[in-house]
Amino acid sequence: MSELKIAIIGGGSSYTPELIEGFIERYMDLPITEICLFDIIEGSKKLDIICQLSIRMVEKSGTPIKITHTLDREKALKNCAFVITQIRVGGIRARITDETIAFNYGMLGQETNGLAGFGKAMRTIPVLLSIAKDMELYCPNAWLINFTNPAGIITEAVSRFTKIKVVGLCNVPVNMQKMIEAHVTGGSLFVQMTGLNHYVYAHQIKLSGREQLPFILENLLNDDSFNPKNIGHAGYQVSQIKGLGVLPCYYHAYYYLKDEMYAEAKAEFEREGSRGTVVKMVEEELFKIYTDPNLSTKPEALSKRGGAYYSEAACELIRSIFVDKRNLMVVNVPNNGILRELPDDAVIETTCIITNNGPIPLPVTTLPFPIRAEIVSIKGYERLVIEASLKSSYNIAMHALTVHPLCPTGNQLKAALDALVSANQSYFELI
Amino acid sequence: MSELKIAIIGGGSSYTPELIEGFIERYMDLPITEICLFDIIEGSKKLDIICQLSIRMVEKSGTPIKITHTLDREKALKNCAFVITQIRVGGIRARITDETIAFNYGMLGQETNGLAGFGKAMRTIPVLLSIAKDMELYCPNAWLINFTNPAGIITEAVSRFTKIKVVGLCNVPVNMQKMIEAHVTGGSLFVQMTGLNHYVYAHQIKLSGREQLPFILENLLNDDSFNPKNIGHAGYQVSQIKGLGVLPCYYHAYYYLKDEMYAEAKAEFEREGSRGTVVKMVEEELFKIYTDPNLSTKPEALSKRGGAYYSEAACELIRSIFVDKRNLMVVNVPNNGILRELPDDAVIETTCIITNNGPIPLPVTTLPFPIRAEIVSIKGYERLVIEASLKSSYNIAMHALTVHPLCPTGNQLKAALDALVSANQSYFELI
Amino acid sequence: MSELKIAIIGGGSSYTPELIEGFIERYMDLPITEICLFDIIEGSKKLDIICQLSIRMVEKSGTPIKITHTLDREKALKNCAFVITQIRVGGIRARITDETIAFNYGMLGQETNGLAGFGKAMRTIPVLLSIAKDMELYCPNAWLINFTNPAGIITEAVSRFTKIKVVGLCNVPVNMQKMIEAHVTGGSLFVQMTGLNHYVYAHQIKLSGREQLPFILENLLNDDSFNPKNIGHAGYQVSQIKGLGVLPCYYHAYYYLKDEMYAEAKAEFEREGSRGTVVKMVEEELFKIYTDPNLSTKPEALSKRGGAYYSEAACELIRSIFVDKRNLMVVNVPNNGILRELPDDAVIETTCIITNNGPIPLPVTTLPFPIRAEIVSIKGYERLVIEASLKSSYNIAMHALTVHPLCPTGNQLKAALDALVSANQSYFELI
Amino acid sequence: MSELKIAIIGGGSSYTPELIEGFIERYMDLPITEICLFDIIEGSKKLDIICQLSIRMVEKSGTPIKITHTLDREKALKNCAFVITQIRVGGIRARITDETIAFNYGMLGQETNGLAGFGKAMRTIPVLLSIAKDMELYCPNAWLINFTNPAGIITEAVSRFTKIKVVGLCNVPVNMQKMIEAHVTGGSLFVQMTGLNHYVYAHQIKLSGREQLPFILENLLNDDSFNPKNIGHAGYQVSQIKGLGVLPCYYHAYYYLKDEMYAEAKAEFEREGSRGTVVKMVEEELFKIYTDPNLSTKPEALSKRGGAYYSEAACELIRSIFVDKRNLMVVNVPNNGILRELPDDAVIETTCIITNNGPIPLPVTTLPFPIRAEIVSIKGYERLVIEASLKSSYNIAMHALTVHPLCPTGNQLKAALDALVSANQSYFELI
Repeated sequence: MSELKIAIIGGGSSYTPELIEGFIERYMDLPITEICLFDIIEGSKKLDIICQLSIRMVEKSGTPIKITHTLDREKALKNCAFVITQIRVGGIRARITDETIAFNYGMLGQETNGLAGFGKAMRTIPVLLSIAKDMELYCPNAWLINFTNPAGIITEAVSRFTKIKVVGLCNVPVNMQKMIEAHVTGGSLFVQMTGLNHYVYAHQIKLSGREQLPFILENLLNDDSFNPKNIGHAGYQVSQIKGLGVLPCYYHAYYYLKDEMYAEAKAEFEREGSRGTVVKMVEEELFKIYTDPNLSTKPEALSKRGGAYYSEAACELIRSIFVDKRNLMVVNVPNNGILRELPDDAVIETTCIITNNGPIPLPVTTLPFPIRAEIVSIKGYERLVIEASLKSSYNIAMHALTVHPLCPTGNQLKAALDALVSANQSYFELI
Repeated sequence: MSELKIAIIGGGSSYTPELIEGFIERYMDLPITEICLFDIIEGSKKLDIICQLSIRMVEKSGTPIKITHTLDREKALKNCAFVITQIRVGGIRARITDETIAFNYGMLGQETNGLAGFGKAMRTIPVLLSIAKDMELYCPNAWLINFTNPAGIITEAVSRFTKIKVVGLCNVPVNMQKMIEAHVTGGSLFVQMTGLNHYVYAHQIKLSGREQLPFILENLLNDDSFNPKNIGHAGYQVSQIKGLGVLPCYYHAYYYLKDEMYAEAKAEFEREGSRGTVVKMVEEELFKIYTDPNLSTKPEALSKRGGAYYSEAACELIRSIFVDKRNLMVVNVPNNGILRELPDDAVIETTCIITNNGPIPLPVTTLPFPIRAEIVSIKGYERLVIEASLKSSYNIAMHALTVHPLCPTGNQLKAALDALVSANQSYFELI
Repeated sequence: MSELKIAIIGGGSSYTPELIEGFIERYMDLPITEICLFDIIEGSKKLDIICQLSIRMVEKSGTPIKITHTLDREKALKNCAFVITQIRVGGIRARITDETIAFNYGMLGQETNGLAGFGKAMRTIPVLLSIAKDMELYCPNAWLINFTNPAGIITEAVSRFTKIKVVGLCNVPVNMQKMIEAHVTGGSLFVQMTGLNHYVYAHQIKLSGREQLPFILENLLNDDSFNPKNIGHAGYQVSQIKGLGVLPCYYHAYYYLKDEMYAEAKAEFEREGSRGTVVKMVEEELFKIYTDPNLSTKPEALSKRGGAYYSEAACELIRSIFVDKRNLMVVNVPNNGILRELPDDAVIETTCIITNNGPIPLPVTTLPFPIRAEIVSIKGYERLVIEASLKSSYNIAMHALTVHPLCPTGNQLKAALDALVSANQSYFELI
Repeated sequence: MSELKIAIIGGGSSYTPELIEGFIERYMDLPITEICLFDIIEGSKKLDIICQLSIRMVEKSGTPIKITHTLDREKALKNCAFVITQIRVGGIRARITDETIAFNYGMLGQETNGLAGFGKAMRTIPVLLSIAKDMELYCPNAWLINFTNPAGIITEAVSRFTKIKVVGLCNVPVNMQKMIEAHVTGGSLFVQMTGLNHYVYAHQIKLSGREQLPFILENLLNDDSFNPKNIGHAGYQVSQIKGLGVLPCYYHAYYYLKDEMYAEAKAEFEREGSRGTVVKMVEEELFKIYTDPNLSTKPEALSKRGGAYYSEAACELIRSIFVDKRNLMVVNVPNNGILRELPDDAVIETTCIITNNGPIPLPVTTLPFPIRAEIVSIKGYERLVIEASLKSSYNIAMHALTVHPLCPTGNQLKAALDALVSANQSYFELI
């Protein structure tokens, strides 16, 4: 295989330099011949900046990777081995709108959960399906590495409704893993995580074959040496977490500390505007730095942006598939019987062994029923979102949001949904 | 079988006259020889009143049923064919306490859902298990007809942890059925309901073989001729219900109209005190009437008490088992593969054919995944409650309440649970 | 519903008078307005004879049922409420051919099992599918009551590949039930049977709630008062049957006494020719009797024909559906989760409660895994037969017969299949 | 981990030198400190010979592995990391007896299938359970690598009824893999096999991601360049194998070519006596060679013995676990949901990724139902054998053999079983 081409859809994203860096570092194992940066016309200015920076980075590295860019999706996808999607349909502006509506109606506005997450999913599903349909034409055997959020929902939509091999990716499990590694040392560590994207649990943490979960749950919130922000959350009640018997991720705080998280986010919103507004400023700052013709490495400032390890995870996953590495990664893949309470085609986030036939999920034997029930509950919501999107159904959207733990119900829900639909007229409609 | 004895545990309840009336009416099919009324010492005065009234009712009817009463459980259970449990551990006082604590911590206080329902379950599970254990000794082949709430949880605890054949019963499906019958006429009607106690859906409504659900969902909330209080709830958003695709019960309003129901209950609470307080006054009134030596029929006033059709359902179920009637009833039984997403030993509320081998659940083929996901979610909570009770585990109690849609989370939840535990010291402890 | 029309496809069969008798007896509950006898042109002479006899039988009974006959399938099916199929594609001649080939290649030739059963299935599946497709046009809401053999395979083909509601019927469970009733007396009897057509087991036999299976298995083969021909088989080894833990049907003898049954059948074949030849003579005799213009009841001679209770079962099933009788019958219906080892759309033979929504299978909780494994094994064969028929696939036919316990393998199998295909050229082809 | 001890139970086997060679070759990755050879008193002479040869082999290799031998099981097992079982309860004499009885009663006598396999299982299960129980005491964390036949049955018995981690191993998949590798070249090969021991299928054969099964099935039996003895069998009918859609193993010939295999084996039996007799002579020859004090490598003659790659597979598996190699191997492990038609605790033979937490089975998504049905059928037999052994039940043994495709039924089966039991009185009894 002389040619090894990768397309980055949303190539104009401020995250791209991290991907470029990741590919440069892995060049020995993963001899990429071309990275094609694609973006839509509205992002063409940013795309230019990123492309120039990427070219400087590759040049400095001395690797023979060709960096190209295009506004033509066919050209980008043609003959790719891997396609990475990191798009934000509607841009940060849409995010700000979603989050603001959420707060206006008494909900926590957070990009991937609840009403704002719903809005993002509704804008994004049709676009990702359209990209995957193009892949069926131009690179039918390529892997789609999706880290567009809400990654679980998006990955499931592509997996169920196109023929493209897709893996969803998130940095949450990577952060949990690093935190566990920092505290559970002195032997060979085996961690198994299962759940959904942004709703994943570590349910096996074995050190040289011995289960460490009881020890961790006992000490997690008492011990200052733990940094519980990354495994679980500082504010959790000790008893809540011990009762689980497994380790939640930090996004669980939105559910297990609903009121506290809402209060905190509300205060921040009133102080600084929506999180989207903050991100917008960081982004503008970053692009100023990127424009500097002397810059030829990933700048420090990017790490402030959040999403640490996202790009590392993507590069690592691609290398692992390419070299058949057989390492463990927590990714989003079809269930296929792993959790018998879910349909086979439901996408779950679970520890897999990465092979050149893709990720192979490990059997799950240690997840108690109540935890499975939580996962099933959220998956019920997720599948309703996909159905609402495909059918443009207002009623199914109402059902979806009714069962979401972070949404209000009844009249207020209807008002919030109407506001959201109205603000998103150019992206989707519900009838 | 010359002897046919029935024991009523909680025989001193104000509901008992309805049961007596029901058995009198069914005497031709169900030739009961003895009804033994049992209560605890604290209820002995009420027990006497009920016993006297029951004797007068039977005498008036001319049926040869013997009415006995006792404070000795062994004597009550000995050689029974059926045992009915309708107890309220802690009495109305405990209910008032639970409901008040719930409101104090910003939750809706409702006897069977959320924090107050949790308190009731924790008080009741050990008592029902103890009754069933006595049945193993004194009437091992008897059927336990449980309508002690929360009926689904209690029935599952008995079913999983004793050898007694148990069926849980509720009047919600009866009311839904009557309402549907009132609006869907002109042919032979087949209704199938499935879910959990107080969380049940009608998912097949066939008139002479043709599905009526789309028609009902379309007209339910638009048409004044519907009395949506009994199927669904007046306040539901039309879109919410249409999106479900199936008909929720009126207890779903606690979940689908969380904010509205809370506001309404809060206002009532502030106006009249807890629902328990209201019930207490009704009860006192009733017993005054019952004492009247000239009263020998069920008084009109009893129907105001709520719980209509509860006793009718119990009498009908017992007759159906006894005569192998093969009628359809919606009762609480072990899942045994009916919903593949739930463990076999999970108790579900579902349409069964009643035979002398007990209720046989109908296969469920028309329940969409998102509805199943809601059911699984609530069952996750229910099983945690049972586990918390059996293990006296504070942590598992916290987990249970954390995942209940009607409870707050984090600090406030802990404070509420602590208050509940403290108020219930004589009934259960959590460690 | 003023009109109640029933079509009998294969109306010229010698069995029809039994059906007519059955409908006459049930007229009070099942006020049939018309019975339309349909047959193909080759059977028109027999059809005339049967029609005349049926008219005489109805006249004698005084019931106002109209008997009609036709060679036009559309006319027969138009507006039917029930359609009964009792056809023999290729007639007795084809059966004789199949059975002879089977013996020539060292197999037992039996109409429903093994090579001869395979031949019958291959001839019959396309015809039944074609009838059901016509029903979709002319009586889409009618029930198809199939007792064309091999009934399990045929019923599954119709159930999976058409929209018609179909129930398969067999007299084996009826005979088992009658035998059990004869020996297990003195209380209320509950029998549950599950398996496949001609491969069904009785796995619950409760007398007033107490399991009788151990008692029956202990005494079945020792006690002369049992007539084991109808439950199990006289030649079974006691130890074989006790080891099962459940009661096999008499068709199991083909599998559990393979060698003995083969020897017996071979001897009979050499003595009298194939069973088909015997049947042919009985048939000719019967039609001579039917022609007698003075005959206006079902003649005694018909009971010699075999297949006792077949027609009774059909009439009873139709009445039960019509009046929503809720009685227990063992019929062939889609699995729908009853046996989790089988696909939902696999047709099984199992105890159902018969309602006007059709048969509702009882949950199966007492069937041990090894028995399920036998059932799965035979179902594997059955589904391959259906697949071979739909795809006209020689290779899949070879696979099907390779896994059938009564077939040889390798060269001899191929030779036998080739002979069978060659003899059936006018009915099916395999490529 | 300074100590790394391995015990070989049945250390006096003629196969041991192959294991020793395998461990010497892998010493760099797998720094074994001690190999303890255990055997029973009857094998002590052979044990001495093997021990001396092993010492010479290790000395020649220059690796610091200590070779010990003992007749004391506690001493052998103490502190082991891995235990290999390769015993033959009753020795070759018992095998000859089993095979002779099988032929006497018209069955193919083959060590692992049918009646002879049943006898071997009945002798071996109690001994392996006893070894595993000792492991619970002396090396509870050790892995048991079982290649005592019938490996699937034995492994399942240990897995279900002891706490020891066990993996069953067979050389059949290794041979299939090598054959496939020889014919499917020019890219990266991925093979997935699933089934039971000696009843395994290759159901995915991907070359650089493209499925090769149709190509292989098309050419397998036509193309002389294939050596079908190792994948499938030379005598298979082309149509049989194409119909399967997957590749059977060569042991399937016992089922798919029942008559041919029987005829061939019968002829060989009459010519040379049972296969056991042949093996006995080869064994005696081998031990003569082993005794030669100048021999310090595995002799050529051993490869004639059959069972090629068995020991290589064992050494490779142990190394893979030890170094967490993540390679694919086909081994016998608990099902745990991989095949939903089987109980979770049923042991299957399936492609796993070998980690230091043991083998992780790959999800199986491409196995058609009829193939699953065959697997379920054989597993039904296997579980009955285990049950017959644990309960010493004659009746269950009769049931087991009745459903085995290679056994006769009825009277002849009973006679054969009686003969087998009588010949094995010192090993097991059936009551």
